Amino acid sequence: MPFTERIYNFSSGPSMLPLPVLEQAAAEMTNYRGSGMSVMEMSHRSKVYIDIFDETKADLKRLMKIPDTHEILFMQGGATLQFSAVPLNLIGKTMKADYAVTGNFSQLAMEEAKKYGKVNIAASSAEKNHTYIPTQDELVLSKDASYFYYCANNTIYGTEWKYAPETGGVPLVSDMSSNILSVPVDVSKFGIIYAGVQKNMAPAGMSVIIIDKSLAGNELPFTPKLLSYKLMIDSDSMHNTPPCYTLYVLGLVLKWLEKQGGVEGMSKIKSEKAKILYDAIDESKLFNGCAEKASRSDMNITFRSSSEELDVKFAKEAASIGLENLKGHRIAGGLRASVYNAMPAEGVHKLVEFMRKFEANN
Amino acid sequence: MPFTERIYNFSSGPSMLPLPVLEQAAAEMTNYRGSGMSVMEMSHRSKVYIDIFDETKADLKRLMKIPDTHEILFMQGGATLQFSAVPLNLIGKTMKADYAVTGNFSQLAMEEAKKYGKVNIAASSAEKNHTYIPTQDELVLSKDASYFYYCANNTIYGTEWKYAPETGGVPLVSDMSSNILSVPVDVSKFGIIYAGVQKNMAPAGMSVIIIDKSLAGNELPFTPKLLSYKLMIDSDSMHNTPPCYTLYVLGLVLKWLEKQGGVEGMSKIKSEKAKILYDAIDESKLFNGCAEKASRSDMNITFRSSSEELDVKFAKEAASIGLENLKGHRIAGGLRASVYNAMPAEGVHKLVEFMRKFEANN
Repeated sequence: MPFTERIYNFSSGPSMLPLPVLEQAAAEMTNYRGSGMSVMEMSHRSKVYIDIFDETKADLKRLMKIPDTHEILFMQGGATLQFSAVPLNLIGKTMKADYAVTGNFSQLAMEEAKKYGKVNIAASSAEKNHTYIPTQDELVLSKDASYFYYCANNTIYGTEWKYAPETGGVPLVSDMSSNILSVPVDVSKFGIIYAGVQKNMAPAGMSVIIIDKSLAGNELPFTPKLLSYKLMIDSDSMHNTPPCYTLYVLGLVLKWLEKQGGVEGMSKIKSEKAKILYDAIDESKLFNGCAEKASRSDMNITFRSSSEELDVKFAKEAASIGLENLKGHRIAGGLRASVYNAMPAEGVHKLVEFMRKFEANN
Repeated sequence: MPFTERIYNFSSGPSMLPLPVLEQAAAEMTNYRGSGMSVMEMSHRSKVYIDIFDETKADLKRLMKIPDTHEILFMQGGATLQFSAVPLNLIGKTMKADYAVTGNFSQLAMEEAKKYGKVNIAASSAEKNHTYIPTQDELVLSKDASYFYYCANNTIYGTEWKYAPETGGVPLVSDMSSNILSVPVDVSKFGIIYAGVQKNMAPAGMSVIIIDKSLAGNELPFTPKLLSYKLMIDSDSMHNTPPCYTLYVLGLVLKWLEKQGGVEGMSKIKSEKAKILYDAIDESKLFNGCAEKASRSDMNITFRSSSEELDVKFAKEAASIGLENLKGHRIAGGLRASVYNAMPAEGVHKLVEFMRKFEANN
């Protein structure tokens, strides 16, 4: 600091947003398209705001090919509040649920679910420090589970599910906070997909829930009113004031995503970015990838050098030239480059260039 | 529409923000003070963001003279999620609570509390359509209540508590969503003050909770983790990602408030604005105020003309000249001018001018 140019921010979230989105938000800040006000100032019941809301929802529905059986909800409290909302709404059916524990956030979700019912650990990668994703054959499924839960991408350990589990009719619930909109998903296979928006969608402060409507309406009696999926469906996420501005920025991000070729186009771009980084790691004599190759995440690329000291030096020197937040999460250590949708390819190229220079010098 | 200039937006919330705040947010959008990134993109654990967070908290503490016995929390879900969080955290002490029902939102809060314990209606203004605030003598208090709850300002009916109830040691809980920072409050008298931010503080998507720390730690066993005040205190509101950008805008609003003379200065300004409007209503032969004079809100000024048709005509004509959202809430009817802190005095003058013109023509 201070930087006169924008940096490349490899943070695991909140993280980069597309520059055109930020520029448009700035340009529209004091007077949104002749409304005479900022989107921040609009009544959520006004026509001008409802138009923004409806268009954003329609764009997400189209981009993710969400079928009419499913509803899109906008809620608050991030993924963490969904750790509670999912069992509060769904576990009542049989009072049992299956959880695959493949990282920190699925672990936390599983612990929260235990408060509300019986939890079966369908799989755990803990014995190998969450460096891999279990295969379908390794999942121990319960026939009478109210739902099966997994976290599709693990930001901390850098692993990603490459398949949607087959559960024989048990509703599939997935936390896609850190890879939503980066890869096409067959939404019809899922009971619930949810995501905190602060990685691939928008600034922090909202979560998107895509729910098979037939699952709603069975919440436990002590469920806080605002956590009822049924209430949110019936009120079109407007029982109370939604996070209006965050949703508007999501709308701008979706327009930008459309220009990248939608989810399919983005998927191609993100695979290329990730490949450049993984190739550089695999070719290096200094750096090693942390996750097993078959389970590598395309969003969070975890690696380490020969020592903790060198990792620290790497992250520090990188930050000084505008490649920021490359330090790994404190519980995993090492290094991590989060390359979400909005990270330009140029940022990845600069990082690889710096990795080579650093290796030559150390 | 389209307006080339900014309008005066009398919405009950979300509502106007100070123009200098919006201008600064726009100017800092793509590169916050040499950080090379937008505040929207910052990791909530980064130094640059923690500085914003800490300064905002310190400013609020100073402006509201919050004693060290109390902690400031930033949560999500608006006031509505606090309707649940308050009983979930506090009612366990005696399983009883007192509620004063003086409008729609205290009614909703009371209904939610019934899910978790026994509720005593300490007062209700329903028999007079919530046009007044009960006096201290009219409150029927329970000695063994876990807390006493009231909503300090009623946006829909346009009434405002002019005193903090004396409860003989029972903790006082107040929803100040629609008048926080408009009038000095002795925080030490309160167990909890909370406010959805979308009226006097920031864009929608956050609530501020000011809590006597000694009240935390008694949540009911099925309380969703993120609704635990204890957890929020222990994690300094950072158990998960807070609504970072909303909090940053709150920080800008607090700097602006400081320039208005702080809460004391603002209180003088808002009283003057409200007086201009109430005087115009009282002098008019066409318009009548809805609330009893002694209970009139300085934030939400409710009034009506001689007929529903004329009310509709008034709101429509006003909107066409940039005085928007003057229609009353659907459950109260009539007209309403919400004149929160950020409404410039000029907006009030223009409204009064229009009222006189309208009366002359109708």
